[in-house]
Amino acid sequence: MVTDKLPKAVIYKDGKLSFLDQTKLPMYEIYEEQHTPEQIYNSIKMLKVRGAPAIGIAGAYGLVVSVKKYINEPVDKFIMELKKTGEYLNSSRPTAVNLSWAVNRIIQRAENSFFNSSNELWYELEREAENIYNEDKKICANIGRYGAELIYDNFGILTHCNAGALAVSELGTALSPIYTALNEGKTFKVYADETRPLLQGARLTSYELQTAGVDVTLICDNMAAYAMSKGLIDVVIVGCDRVAANGDTANKIGTMNVAVLANYFKIPFYAACPSSTFDNMTLTGNDIVIELRDSSEVTHFGGVQTAPDNMKVLNPAFDVTPNELITGFITEYGIIKPPYVINLENILHKGRK
Amino acid sequence: MVTDKLPKAVIYKDGKLSFLDQTKLPMYEIYEEQHTPEQIYNSIKMLKVRGAPAIGIAGAYGLVVSVKKYINEPVDKFIMELKKTGEYLNSSRPTAVNLSWAVNRIIQRAENSFFNSSNELWYELEREAENIYNEDKKICANIGRYGAELIYDNFGILTHCNAGALAVSELGTALSPIYTALNEGKTFKVYADETRPLLQGARLTSYELQTAGVDVTLICDNMAAYAMSKGLIDVVIVGCDRVAANGDTANKIGTMNVAVLANYFKIPFYAACPSSTFDNMTLTGNDIVIELRDSSEVTHFGGVQTAPDNMKVLNPAFDVTPNELITGFITEYGIIKPPYVINLENILHKGRK
Repeated sequence: MVTDKLPKAVIYKDGKLSFLDQTKLPMYEIYEEQHTPEQIYNSIKMLKVRGAPAIGIAGAYGLVVSVKKYINEPVDKFIMELKKTGEYLNSSRPTAVNLSWAVNRIIQRAENSFFNSSNELWYELEREAENIYNEDKKICANIGRYGAELIYDNFGILTHCNAGALAVSELGTALSPIYTALNEGKTFKVYADETRPLLQGARLTSYELQTAGVDVTLICDNMAAYAMSKGLIDVVIVGCDRVAANGDTANKIGTMNVAVLANYFKIPFYAACPSSTFDNMTLTGNDIVIELRDSSEVTHFGGVQTAPDNMKVLNPAFDVTPNELITGFITEYGIIKPPYVINLENILHKGRK
Repeated sequence: MVTDKLPKAVIYKDGKLSFLDQTKLPMYEIYEEQHTPEQIYNSIKMLKVRGAPAIGIAGAYGLVVSVKKYINEPVDKFIMELKKTGEYLNSSRPTAVNLSWAVNRIIQRAENSFFNSSNELWYELEREAENIYNEDKKICANIGRYGAELIYDNFGILTHCNAGALAVSELGTALSPIYTALNEGKTFKVYADETRPLLQGARLTSYELQTAGVDVTLICDNMAAYAMSKGLIDVVIVGCDRVAANGDTANKIGTMNVAVLANYFKIPFYAACPSSTFDNMTLTGNDIVIELRDSSEVTHFGGVQTAPDNMKVLNPAFDVTPNELITGFITEYGIIKPPYVINLENILHKGRK
């Protein structure tokens, strides 16, 4: 199985929590054991662990590990320390919705339980962290199962950024169909955009696909049209950060470039994501605010300055792909096709059942 | 005048030849005086001087400077040394058509002259090198004059790679309309693609536009769709390396990406080039062979390794933009519009008149 070879962002085993330090990849594969809340806070803040679901999983296990020292205290005191630590961990990346969601779920579990012993309560919270991990794992597996149906022998698949094993529990979202197709014995090639400015494609996607034994080729972002024009790409699969009610999709900067190219070359373009990514409170892509990041990400790399001093820079973290360019969404419930206004709403109801 | 502030790739003054070392840009602006054929050979080989016309100009002046020591020899001996040195300089970049074209033009001038003194012949060759420089300068100025008509106040202009002053005699091809519009007092913004893998946009275009006082903003190649979707771009102007008889156009990798995006967002896309770039012996873009370059350009960034060891890479130096995506060619004779099969042929005849 491919999954045996895949790197894991977060490992929890026998009460011990470790994160793969993704800032050291691809040169060094270092798993750091996490002991204290301060260490967990710093690991999340410094992006040693990244990717929305992985941060949530890290936060949930991190909270559980952090409060183990209070298991001999009274339950009141235990819950007080749990909340304090949870608040502290949440502040490590205040904009990461999954982090506070997972941490708060652990706290709520504690508040809704009726144990007389903090020790018993602690084991309940450990199970809840396991649940968060396993639910994500199941979603990813289902995305992989549906997405793999889009992959045929001798296909070329283009992906952008990293929506892989390193960002989730295991398998990934955009990369899950690829791992699943490999498990099914299909033969294909993957092309990975390097994904400037932070090079998640070069550093992370290349690394995890190569580790899993996938035939992967790295290209610069501006080589996608060349690859498509030469007939090397049969399908594009990317992840996504937020999907508006009409299907407009926010994802890592450069995703819209790939979608426009795929449209021109008549190549199907799919976004893979859990249904929790569908945000029906956001009507269209125009309502999605794009974070503009620091110019040094564009003017420097690895300590090397590559542009003149005082250079003006535009550095949006995301772009919004118009719904008309998206062939479909690969979700844990199947592949959603247009019209998105209707079909995305339907899938949300399915999720709530 | 903008041109007073512009950096020059090649300076020849009072018998002294200097090249701006472009490998040190944008951090250091170092002009190196060129004394010997070996030094000139190395400067060209190591890309201290680059850009097709600039390499030709460097070769012509370089040859003239190299043979000055033979001006007291008999004419026969002088011409022999001239040819030997010319052959040596040509071998510094064997695929650079402009280099051998300019060097051979100097040699032919010598062979077609009837001087009894090598000293007099040498001054004739110095004039011929000046001619090569001035002809290029005039072409660039005319491209600028015609291209500036496409630029209106408050425009946003996107360019890719470096087809500027650093690549030619002065003003550039794609950047000449920008400098001309600035001289005319127009106000506008330029967005420069950084142009992976070699970052000519970040290192060179940013530097020369900033030096000239142009309002320039650097973006990663994958941010062009974002900039276009936000209404920041009104026209795209790029250079080109070779244009087939049907208008299919080879240029720096990533140009086709920009052309497809411009087409989707209904933004005019122009390629600026001297008419000598039109190659009516090449029928379509399919007949243009694309050089595949070393993988280390993609796996490393500013000297830092960014991808796993043994990473498979696709690294084409150029791509070919289909003619249907090109709004027009900005040439020294005016702007050429479709149908290209007819209109490019006409301009070549005009050039031969």
